[in-house]
Amino acid sequence: MGTIQIYTGNGKGKTTAALGQALRAVGQGFQVIVIQFMKGKINYGELEAVKKLAGFTIEQYGLPTFVNKAKPSKEDIALAKKGFARAKEVILSDKYDMVILDEINVALDYGLVPLKELLEVVKQKPQNIELILTGRYAPKELIEVADLVTEMKEIKHHYQKGIPARKGIEY
Amino acid sequence: MGTIQIYTGNGKGKTTAALGQALRAVGQGFQVIVIQFMKGKINYGELEAVKKLAGFTIEQYGLPTFVNKAKPSKEDIALAKKGFARAKEVILSDKYDMVILDEINVALDYGLVPLKELLEVVKQKPQNIELILTGRYAPKELIEVADLVTEMKEIKHHYQKGIPARKGIEY
Repeated sequence: MGTIQIYTGNGKGKTTAALGQALRAVGQGFQVIVIQFMKGKINYGELEAVKKLAGFTIEQYGLPTFVNKAKPSKEDIALAKKGFARAKEVILSDKYDMVILDEINVALDYGLVPLKELLEVVKQKPQNIELILTGRYAPKELIEVADLVTEMKEIKHHYQKGIPARKGIEY
Repeated sequence: MGTIQIYTGNGKGKTTAALGQALRAVGQGFQVIVIQFMKGKINYGELEAVKKLAGFTIEQYGLPTFVNKAKPSKEDIALAKKGFARAKEVILSDKYDMVILDEINVALDYGLVPLKELLEVVKQKPQNIELILTGRYAPKELIEVADLVTEMKEIKHHYQKGIPARKGIEY
């Protein structure tokens, strides 16, 4: 039976924990889809790697530029809407064993995806699907309906400021 | 330049975060090796998946049975020793871009790997290698030398007790 997992918090490892779960699942012959919201960049590393893995799909719904929380662009709003429509479709279709909505919590926090609608979809989730939701700021209503919630907490971060994201590490 | 990352804490997602980092790195053409210590099971999912991915190696040094902390078996001790010798070798060889020592913190905590020797290896790490250390109970001496430390904290865990680990999710 599939559960609902949330990876949240200000630390590293939320998206990568979901990707690692996906890797393990496809190794067992599962069908996995990752729907990425909000990404301020193209996650080239994982996109390239999954091409080699049958049953592993990643779809990105976000612009390479970061979303302005105070004033998201029309395109940001449209893409999040499209991503969320796709998320509903894949969850309710019951064609996947694992569905990962990456950074959905941030999309919620930015008001790009309506929490009420997400909660509806989660309630209607077919039993066997493992649903994984990532991103900081997971709302308490979502935490309430989840089975497993993990907070990634930054204990130490010694990167020098201003160093750009590193290929193969952050993307 | 490679950094030293630690994923620790009592929550889920430490090993999977490291696996996700590995997936991203191999997608960028990096050479990645994961050395797994202590595993009380065969992690079939990730072992199968990586067969399809060039530049991604996983080696396991542990028995399918759990280690008895009070009295580890001779074989547990020998395997951890072998795994640690291999870890030293791969780190100092400088043939990999990313080296993941999975559950090494637990091997330290169980006294199967000497902290002093690990700290020596970490100090000698070639600059460009990204070194990732996982497992609960990361000792403070290791945290001191790390660049990035993330604690996976269990916020909610609603699994029923006694349910066996699930294929494709926990292994």
